[in-house]
Amino acid sequence: MTPVLPKSDAAALVVAARIRRGLTWAQLAEEIGAPVVWTTAALLGQHPMTPEQARCACLLLGLDESVEESLRLQPSRGADPATLTDPTVYRFHEALSVYGPALKELIHEEFGDGIMSAINFRVDIARRPDPDGDRVVVTFDGKFLDYRW
Amino acid sequence: MTPVLPKSDAAALVVAARIRRGLTWAQLAEEIGAPVVWTTAALLGQHPMTPEQARCACLLLGLDESVEESLRLQPSRGADPATLTDPTVYRFHEALSVYGPALKELIHEEFGDGIMSAINFRVDIARRPDPDGDRVVVTFDGKFLDYRW
Amino acid sequence: MTPVLPKSDAAALVVAARIRRGLTWAQLAEEIGAPVVWTTAALLGQHPMTPEQARCACLLLGLDESVEESLRLQPSRGADPATLTDPTVYRFHEALSVYGPALKELIHEEFGDGIMSAINFRVDIARRPDPDGDRVVVTFDGKFLDYRW
Amino acid sequence: MTPVLPKSDAAALVVAARIRRGLTWAQLAEEIGAPVVWTTAALLGQHPMTPEQARCACLLLGLDESVEESLRLQPSRGADPATLTDPTVYRFHEALSVYGPALKELIHEEFGDGIMSAINFRVDIARRPDPDGDRVVVTFDGKFLDYRW
Amino acid sequence: MTPVLPKSDAAALVVAARIRRGLTWAQLAEEIGAPVVWTTAALLGQHPMTPEQARCACLLLGLDESVEESLRLQPSRGADPATLTDPTVYRFHEALSVYGPALKELIHEEFGDGIMSAINFRVDIARRPDPDGDRVVVTFDGKFLDYRW
Amino acid sequence: MTPVLPKSDAAALVVAARIRRGLTWAQLAEEIGAPVVWTTAALLGQHPMTPEQARCACLLLGLDESVEESLRLQPSRGADPATLTDPTVYRFHEALSVYGPALKELIHEEFGDGIMSAINFRVDIARRPDPDGDRVVVTFDGKFLDYRW
Amino acid sequence: MTPVLPKSDAAALVVAARIRRGLTWAQLAEEIGAPVVWTTAALLGQHPMTPEQARCACLLLGLDESVEESLRLQPSRGADPATLTDPTVYRFHEALSVYGPALKELIHEEFGDGIMSAINFRVDIARRPDPDGDRVVVTFDGKFLDYRW
Amino acid sequence: MTPVLPKSDAAALVVAARIRRGLTWAQLAEEIGAPVVWTTAALLGQHPMTPEQARCACLLLGLDESVEESLRLQPSRGADPATLTDPTVYRFHEALSVYGPALKELIHEEFGDGIMSAINFRVDIARRPDPDGDRVVVTFDGKFLDYRW
Amino acid sequence: MTPVLPKSDAAALVVAARIRRGLTWAQLAEEIGAPVVWTTAALLGQHPMTPEQARCACLLLGLDESVEESLRLQPSRGADPATLTDPTVYRFHEALSVYGPALKELIHEEFGDGIMSAINFRVDIARRPDPDGDRVVVTFDGKFLDYRW
Amino acid sequence: MTPVLPKSDAAALVVAARIRRGLTWAQLAEEIGAPVVWTTAALLGQHPMTPEQARCACLLLGLDESVEESLRLQPSRGADPATLTDPTVYRFHEALSVYGPALKELIHEEFGDGIMSAINFRVDIARRPDPDGDRVVVTFDGKFLDYRW
Repeated sequence: MTPVLPKSDAAALVVAARIRRGLTWAQLAEEIGAPVVWTTAALLGQHPMTPEQARCACLLLGLDESVEESLRLQPSRGADPATLTDPTVYRFHEALSVYGPALKELIHEEFGDGIMSAINFRVDIARRPDPDGDRVVVTFDGKFLDYRW
Repeated sequence: MTPVLPKSDAAALVVAARIRRGLTWAQLAEEIGAPVVWTTAALLGQHPMTPEQARCACLLLGLDESVEESLRLQPSRGADPATLTDPTVYRFHEALSVYGPALKELIHEEFGDGIMSAINFRVDIARRPDPDGDRVVVTFDGKFLDYRW
Repeated sequence: MTPVLPKSDAAALVVAARIRRGLTWAQLAEEIGAPVVWTTAALLGQHPMTPEQARCACLLLGLDESVEESLRLQPSRGADPATLTDPTVYRFHEALSVYGPALKELIHEEFGDGIMSAINFRVDIARRPDPDGDRVVVTFDGKFLDYRW
Repeated sequence: MTPVLPKSDAAALVVAARIRRGLTWAQLAEEIGAPVVWTTAALLGQHPMTPEQARCACLLLGLDESVEESLRLQPSRGADPATLTDPTVYRFHEALSVYGPALKELIHEEFGDGIMSAINFRVDIARRPDPDGDRVVVTFDGKFLDYRW
Repeated sequence: MTPVLPKSDAAALVVAARIRRGLTWAQLAEEIGAPVVWTTAALLGQHPMTPEQARCACLLLGLDESVEESLRLQPSRGADPATLTDPTVYRFHEALSVYGPALKELIHEEFGDGIMSAINFRVDIARRPDPDGDRVVVTFDGKFLDYRW
Repeated sequence: MTPVLPKSDAAALVVAARIRRGLTWAQLAEEIGAPVVWTTAALLGQHPMTPEQARCACLLLGLDESVEESLRLQPSRGADPATLTDPTVYRFHEALSVYGPALKELIHEEFGDGIMSAINFRVDIARRPDPDGDRVVVTFDGKFLDYRW
Repeated sequence: MTPVLPKSDAAALVVAARIRRGLTWAQLAEEIGAPVVWTTAALLGQHPMTPEQARCACLLLGLDESVEESLRLQPSRGADPATLTDPTVYRFHEALSVYGPALKELIHEEFGDGIMSAINFRVDIARRPDPDGDRVVVTFDGKFLDYRW
Repeated sequence: MTPVLPKSDAAALVVAARIRRGLTWAQLAEEIGAPVVWTTAALLGQHPMTPEQARCACLLLGLDESVEESLRLQPSRGADPATLTDPTVYRFHEALSVYGPALKELIHEEFGDGIMSAINFRVDIARRPDPDGDRVVVTFDGKFLDYRW
Repeated sequence: MTPVLPKSDAAALVVAARIRRGLTWAQLAEEIGAPVVWTTAALLGQHPMTPEQARCACLLLGLDESVEESLRLQPSRGADPATLTDPTVYRFHEALSVYGPALKELIHEEFGDGIMSAINFRVDIARRPDPDGDRVVVTFDGKFLDYRW
Repeated sequence: MTPVLPKSDAAALVVAARIRRGLTWAQLAEEIGAPVVWTTAALLGQHPMTPEQARCACLLLGLDESVEESLRLQPSRGADPATLTDPTVYRFHEALSVYGPALKELIHEEFGDGIMSAINFRVDIARRPDPDGDRVVVTFDGKFLDYRW
């Protein structure tokens, strides 16, 4: 009996295989039949995959059953704090640091006392052409949940 | 000579006056003529206002010149860490903790080595009706900046 | 114009008045017509009260309108970290430290991938007589939310 | 002479074997003859098992004597801080952050100066059907201990 | 209505009055009729006093009713982290850092799986004459509580 | 040339051998001819043993010369912070958090400005029968050291 | 006798007076006769000023003798950690996070084992026009100090 | 399938090979045809190299394809916090701690509300001969980015 | 009844009076008749003064009885963590960071298992002329204490 | 190609060899021809050795070329934070915590605005016989560096 391959190890193998086979995350998502941000997050270890999704991913990437088993596992979610210093990720945290209290005020003004769910939730990313330089557009879309006793 | 009213004190007075006068952030933004997330963030102390914007805001809110002067001040940005435990704000951090590494991968796949700017940047919030419960939709929209030596 | 009385100051006045008038939290909750844990949390600054609830509470406690206004305010939630060292509060954290991963496993086993909501949520506390010493029984009761894209 | 298998390693093997053999925590608890939360916590390394319980668990899971020895060991309790970022576990901490001070007030009101024991203590989890969505109900049940010199 | 005098403010007044009136903690404890460590801890804000104890203490120290009310209050326990750097307090933490794991092993060997209660607990301090220099002898005496489901 | 076996590895081997051979810490201490808390702490890596003590311990436990060498080594003292969350160890820290400032006051009252040494120091643990439940009695006994320039 | 005005309070008064009188840091530096980064740092509390410099600054800013005395004081240096979240300051820390190890390698390659002094040190800032957008150019210039026993 | 060699491992191999072959960072940069600070940072894992750059570096250093693949990888940027205690790196942090707020003031005075980019950015290091001891001169040169909604 | 003036407030008054009266720490020490490092530390709040020392200091500095009372008080020792970022203080910490483990080895080699006391301890500072630049010479001189059970 | 042996691994081998060969740090220093604190620090990884020093040390200790190469390497300085809890090292930190601000005052009084260099710096340790118990005498001796723009 061996432990299940940790999701971080599976993710490292996915990343290596994706690069060596010249596949994009978008191609993987399309083959797996799931949204691209969801698929990327799942392959990096943040969501459990169905057996079919895991099998399909491993087939495309040439990875064995130990990875497949790991991808199906229920994760303990939350990113590595080490990524916080990475500038690409940090800018999102900076935006929250500057705009978080304003978003809180506006959610309460529009919806009342409650939150945007991070569970019944999807996120998308797109490129918007712009003559002054193309833009990264990221959309957080979560169900409003009101405080209800 | 007295020090400039700190922005956190000015924000506390703005919040009190807004509630007592029955004004919404949206109304304040419309009168001031600026986007609503920007206006709310500025009134909470995260952006400097022009003299006209500050004067207009204080007129609407019945606040005196010390607040006006404070709102024009260049801020030291970044939210109070105390807000991190608030559930409405925390859900955004949780979403980044789960999806941050995936967004990094997809930005690099689509744009190459670089970041979404948090300076040449706007954020918007909207309510999307949904039969299963209305949704909070927050859009981060920043210029892509590539690593360039 | 003065800022709204901070909720922590309002809570300190509520605590003082409650003791001096010899009122229990249970009596306050009954008069206000709300569950006792909710009422106590709201008076300590963790929930906004309706104008009627705030007025009723201040009438019972002999507190003025500045407290009433503060109790109606939308809170920034989350307890003071200083309470963490208090033994009565610490035991709950210790229980989570020991049983948290087990609760996670059992929620996933019974419900699938998701969480117990802390927003659509109620908590109750009761005394259960026991010949070996009465027991504190605290019930957390939250809606299950499944990860749904 | 080799060191005893660390409880975290034993737990990883238990988790892998449980999934591969298609056993639920509830089935394991029933076979072992102990409450389900206790059993899950013990198999994850938070309680020592009796030799009979450890033998029974390893028989069901097809694990060898090194795991059995580890499960009998006196633990150093307390969950991995890494689980704190997991949303399923975090919601419990958030609930304590919001309601902890209220629970403290109500324990003192009802019982006097003291604590809910986390040692003479049991915790249970149940599913309560609800037309608005089934609910997770977690009960903390600990003996009251009064400060006694 | 004013808030109750915080226990830290009451403690500062107790300390000042004790020095100015030339009273020892031992004298205070004897007059109040309680053990000296308990009394000192209570006057420093770590235990609630009965109305009689609080009245007696304030009479001896020449302090007014606001201190008396504060001393009767249920405390939020736990020492100021600032005291951790004080050498007199630090040595106790150092002793725990060196001997804590050994004490854990020996409690389990002698009593089984459980803890020394810090609630049903008393602590005493004494001076033991010694030709090589007198010794500080501190005794922790707590009821053993076994893990009991 | 190989590095000396780290004391934490030696301690893990001691713990495993002690359990497998059915020896108590008290038996080990008696054979080694040293106080039981000292012996346990030394075998867990907090004190250097003499060559005779180390040889005797390894003989009793069936451990080889690499452990013997490690036990003789001068340690870098201080417990693993991971043990802080263990309830059996935590109760000692909680007692210090509540009573530390009182002990400081009473040491200064009785002895003047100085500390209880944690170097010229011994600690003992005993079981005291009590009809309400046996008690853990831990005695800290250190030489008083006055601040002396 | 009153304490010396803390340097942070003096800095707040300098900032307010500078804005209200419409003076730039560059003008202040020129009048005082010192480099602009040095002058700004000194007025913000990071360097002691000579009596002449302090008098000149307070004359220009219309500040009284208590500020003058504070500006002459020997500082306890180091920026407020709160500024770390400000994006304008954070970018410098990010640059060090990315390039710090490379700078260390290159200092050792060019100079040997040692450091760039931060005491025998000056820093300058300039604007460099650039068709793609003007650039901020900051120069750190410190004496090399070799490790010398 | 094996994971890509982590960039920290690749950097350790680069460092070893550079020393053993007697190559300077400056020579490596010249052969690779890129600025020396950029090249050093890239070889230490902070920038992705082009396939040509990576091949050239590995050829010069006698390293195999696994290093080459690693050097081409998109990094997660940010230095090891362990380097913070190194005196050569610490002096840069100290300079920012002392001069950071002054640089912020002067950037805003000269350019308005915005930042020096750390992405569209280059850094250079030079030795400046000086009779009092040669000097380390480090230049940060980044595009100004104004806050633009 | 008022609380005793906190030692940090007394220190701020001492610092202000010392500067305004043009007295050096050395002069104060000489008048008080105590070593200069001891005296400076005591006046900054790290040692209790005798009534005579406190009276003498306050006479010299023109400070009133509230300062005198504060200086006699038993302190809670340990420096403000804010001073850690000050370069003059930081260099001592850096030296310990680099040489601490070596000093530990050499104390054990010369004296055996034990420590240099920081209680039976004195520290001195001197200026040593040197043609290459005068030197700061700081001597720590503490009694060796061996681990003695 | 293999990475250079990390300095912490080389130090562990030095420590083991020193003990097994019965050599003192003083003997090693004498053979190597360098001061004893410097030599100990260098062998523990805090200073680079010359090729001759490294060769001599490895010859004496019977260590191979991989250790020799590691000892010559430029270090990333700074002690392991784990040593902070060790009482022998902690006492030095405690002394700085108590006397650091006084040393700062006295350096500024004697030398003006500046620091004691930790780079142009030596430290020595000696045993001073004393009838009340021998003393550890540690001397820090660094060049004064004045703030010079």
